[in-house]
Amino acid sequence: MKRDITIGWIGTGVMGISMLGHLNKAGYECTTYTRTKSKADALLANGVKWADSPAEVAAVSDVIFTIVGFPKDVREVYFGENGILAKAKPGAVLVDMTTTEPSLAVEIYEAARAKGIQSVDAPVSGGDVGAKNGTLSIMAGGDKEAFDKVCPLFEIMGKQIVYQGEAGSGQHTKMCNQITIAGTKIGVCEALLYGHKAGLDLPTMLSSISGGAAGCWTLDNLAPRIVNRNFDPGFFVEHFIKDMGIALKEAEAMGLSLPGLALVKQLYLAVQAQGHGKLGTHSLTLALEKLSGL
Amino acid sequence: MKRDITIGWIGTGVMGISMLGHLNKAGYECTTYTRTKSKADALLANGVKWADSPAEVAAVSDVIFTIVGFPKDVREVYFGENGILAKAKPGAVLVDMTTTEPSLAVEIYEAARAKGIQSVDAPVSGGDVGAKNGTLSIMAGGDKEAFDKVCPLFEIMGKQIVYQGEAGSGQHTKMCNQITIAGTKIGVCEALLYGHKAGLDLPTMLSSISGGAAGCWTLDNLAPRIVNRNFDPGFFVEHFIKDMGIALKEAEAMGLSLPGLALVKQLYLAVQAQGHGKLGTHSLTLALEKLSGL
Amino acid sequence: MKRDITIGWIGTGVMGISMLGHLNKAGYECTTYTRTKSKADALLANGVKWADSPAEVAAVSDVIFTIVGFPKDVREVYFGENGILAKAKPGAVLVDMTTTEPSLAVEIYEAARAKGIQSVDAPVSGGDVGAKNGTLSIMAGGDKEAFDKVCPLFEIMGKQIVYQGEAGSGQHTKMCNQITIAGTKIGVCEALLYGHKAGLDLPTMLSSISGGAAGCWTLDNLAPRIVNRNFDPGFFVEHFIKDMGIALKEAEAMGLSLPGLALVKQLYLAVQAQGHGKLGTHSLTLALEKLSGL
Amino acid sequence: MKRDITIGWIGTGVMGISMLGHLNKAGYECTTYTRTKSKADALLANGVKWADSPAEVAAVSDVIFTIVGFPKDVREVYFGENGILAKAKPGAVLVDMTTTEPSLAVEIYEAARAKGIQSVDAPVSGGDVGAKNGTLSIMAGGDKEAFDKVCPLFEIMGKQIVYQGEAGSGQHTKMCNQITIAGTKIGVCEALLYGHKAGLDLPTMLSSISGGAAGCWTLDNLAPRIVNRNFDPGFFVEHFIKDMGIALKEAEAMGLSLPGLALVKQLYLAVQAQGHGKLGTHSLTLALEKLSGL
Repeated sequence: MKRDITIGWIGTGVMGISMLGHLNKAGYECTTYTRTKSKADALLANGVKWADSPAEVAAVSDVIFTIVGFPKDVREVYFGENGILAKAKPGAVLVDMTTTEPSLAVEIYEAARAKGIQSVDAPVSGGDVGAKNGTLSIMAGGDKEAFDKVCPLFEIMGKQIVYQGEAGSGQHTKMCNQITIAGTKIGVCEALLYGHKAGLDLPTMLSSISGGAAGCWTLDNLAPRIVNRNFDPGFFVEHFIKDMGIALKEAEAMGLSLPGLALVKQLYLAVQAQGHGKLGTHSLTLALEKLSGL
Repeated sequence: MKRDITIGWIGTGVMGISMLGHLNKAGYECTTYTRTKSKADALLANGVKWADSPAEVAAVSDVIFTIVGFPKDVREVYFGENGILAKAKPGAVLVDMTTTEPSLAVEIYEAARAKGIQSVDAPVSGGDVGAKNGTLSIMAGGDKEAFDKVCPLFEIMGKQIVYQGEAGSGQHTKMCNQITIAGTKIGVCEALLYGHKAGLDLPTMLSSISGGAAGCWTLDNLAPRIVNRNFDPGFFVEHFIKDMGIALKEAEAMGLSLPGLALVKQLYLAVQAQGHGKLGTHSLTLALEKLSGL
Repeated sequence: MKRDITIGWIGTGVMGISMLGHLNKAGYECTTYTRTKSKADALLANGVKWADSPAEVAAVSDVIFTIVGFPKDVREVYFGENGILAKAKPGAVLVDMTTTEPSLAVEIYEAARAKGIQSVDAPVSGGDVGAKNGTLSIMAGGDKEAFDKVCPLFEIMGKQIVYQGEAGSGQHTKMCNQITIAGTKIGVCEALLYGHKAGLDLPTMLSSISGGAAGCWTLDNLAPRIVNRNFDPGFFVEHFIKDMGIALKEAEAMGLSLPGLALVKQLYLAVQAQGHGKLGTHSLTLALEKLSGL
Repeated sequence: MKRDITIGWIGTGVMGISMLGHLNKAGYECTTYTRTKSKADALLANGVKWADSPAEVAAVSDVIFTIVGFPKDVREVYFGENGILAKAKPGAVLVDMTTTEPSLAVEIYEAARAKGIQSVDAPVSGGDVGAKNGTLSIMAGGDKEAFDKVCPLFEIMGKQIVYQGEAGSGQHTKMCNQITIAGTKIGVCEALLYGHKAGLDLPTMLSSISGGAAGCWTLDNLAPRIVNRNFDPGFFVEHFIKDMGIALKEAEAMGLSLPGLALVKQLYLAVQAQGHGKLGTHSLTLALEKLSGL
């Protein structure tokens, strides 16, 4: 894929702004649209072009990336009156990097195919830091051929790029990621609460358990923040709730009972109900503390 | 601590046999007792001496280690008619490396102190492999002075040796370890089940998620075994149930609600009820599969 | 309300067939549409008229009742191309007796009001037996004036008719009903399992506990069926799952964490995954038994 | 059984005081011991005799009843130095009405039998009101012959007297009662919380659902108290926690997974941790409210 292809980008939130920045810096001609134009100001100042709708972005782009908020936003961006599918060119490749419903990814894939357009679902993990440093993990689904076309672009944004299979597989893989995280979160937060109540020195406790069978990213990266009472978001509680909701809905449709995930989701709803939806996922601790009257 | 001190060792199960082996090899004079004498045969052949009861071991040892099964076994070994406390010498140091109740560790500590004996609770993590390779994580509680005395011996058995504080702190730290593991287990097993149902290629899925925020020891070490349907134990389901039971009991006594741990424990009771108590902890998968009719 | 008003009825499943039968017998002119016409045969033989769509039913009716399956069916019946709202007459009253989303009830209410039509949400409890005997409990929401108009018709179908408040209140009340039932079901099924394992004679056990603080409808009516291994449906597992899903979704939207309901729903998903979606709700027992390897 | 038999009674808490009162009034010669003598003052003023220990009560009684607090209290009262078994007469019948461990009931039964004494476990339900009005439900285990001997005495204290089978069966039946109650409590409390958030008028809502499939004692008796924010105890949170703990322990020993009960117990631990251990069981509501930030 040469630099003569043009790139469209919808969504310049905390993740998108860095990701598009990397592509722009790499020399691609980029056109963007985002709901709040001011969020794209820095990019526009660096040569990214503006278009007035997703459709207008699609009209001038060979590959169109999207990374927005909720499934309904994705739906609007693709299927809305001024959505991508209204004006995308045959031969284009659409890449949704939002974490969204696998079934929606399949829907986009099929609507695109009917118009001679290819579609890849490619959610990411790695957060704002990974987006900034170009070290995201990208999990992709769709036709292998389409994946191969956009893979060089993924490599500009991430480090761990894996083709997972047919349409929706990227999203399903992201769900596996989130389900695992739900477990590590409840484990780490309950352990810290126990340690606190038992009178342990928490950093010392962590030094004993982090390197062994209890070891996990959450223990290494978020437990120290909990100890320091820093609940700033790496990843928002309310986005995690959205993701767990998708996973539970898909699991239900597939005939799966996931009692652990269901419990953790309810506890996160408590975190949100207590007013902490914009804090980081490690603020699960706050709901557990309140539960035990701390 | 010089090699002129004598070592006593109670319990030569899969862990104890390797740990005592390291001390013996290091040149210490060691005396052992274990419930099933044949389990100590290899050690006895290598110069370890035999004594007919915990009390007899204690009578001839400066430092007495124990690593047995359940809290009631610990109680018997220390407080029984032929238990350690019946014959341990003033100035001796007792070191219980069994994972047991923090409150029992305190009880031993106090009973020992009344006789001018020191006591350290020092449960480990790292499993049979860690025991064999001398790479255990050892989490110790008790008087710092007593810890300092036995620390050189710990260094022969483990790599991560951490003094956690007063009596019981080693056990409490181990509970933090097990609580965290309970969370990672449910997360990983539910994620794999979801991935399986979604039709993902599981090793490919794992390659996407293992390196990021979902990363954990369980994902690295046990998920591949689950994929290969190898449920051989690193750590027995029934021992994990014991540990979770201790954590929940202590939490209750401290006024803590731990809904995640309580759920995971019930699911492990299901694993055991289904006949898999002697399989590894990753066989949580089996109960989740049965739940969803797989 | 005199018998000169005309009644429309959409949905002649196991509940609807009895309910419409009562109205027909009471002398009202009734017109019906249902997806599978043969289900209405007996009614048509008794003088009920047929129309070819919800719209056609609405065109000739003063009060239109609906009782169909899932929220998406309700949506189709009201908002579809040939839906009720396409042809309902100004001044008509629409009464949805399906258990559905409170937010959908409000949506219907507002769409109707915009056309000068009144709307009442009026889900029921009491099952097929209550429908047959005219002893349903009917919980109604909407404008009081509209409720008053249709109340005489409700009285033909039920015994406990209660106006609950503004649009959606009937559905919300039904959700309270289902949430309570979720709790009684898990309580009764776990108790019976415990009693069975403890070797109790279950009918004797029930005779001790049914009359006291544990007393509940489920204990009186379903526990004996469980004892006799009769899992025939009073109420389908799959419909109960739908209802719990609605309650959890509404609770999430209102900022409520309901851990008990979430757990019970997952256990019912297990019942369904095990192939028992068409059995009665007391077959929760079957999933609990499988969990414990029975 | 004639009035020439003598009765011993240990434990004059809120239940015991009424129960012994009935026996005394019925003309039996009664001797009592209780930890806090002042609690027995009213009874002593009415002719009940005092003895200085359980053993002294047993020494002068044909039938000895006990109703104390926790399993450890039962153990002390029967097996302690001045316990019942130290001085009970051959031919005596011991009746423990405390809710306690079924396995402890079996232990008492066997220790008694070894001395030619009979033993009946006979926990009750019905609370202080049932004790006062003589309308308790009494669930009894032990030899049928022993039950028959004391049945006339039970009939003075209760209304629903049922022989459940061998030693421990009374306790097991009580556990079935408590497990069921755990379910009804979470169901009712979550339903009320939902109704509150949905803006329903709670008494009106209750009038719709109490009479149908959601109907239960908790809904009839405790829901109105919750609505009125009256959390006075019928039954203490901390005693219910004890009972659920016994049930979970026995279930574990029998190889049963009870996820519903385990969750409810953790939520009650939260109630207690929040400082409400001496409130009634319907204060589960308080923990659920706090969870959702209300």
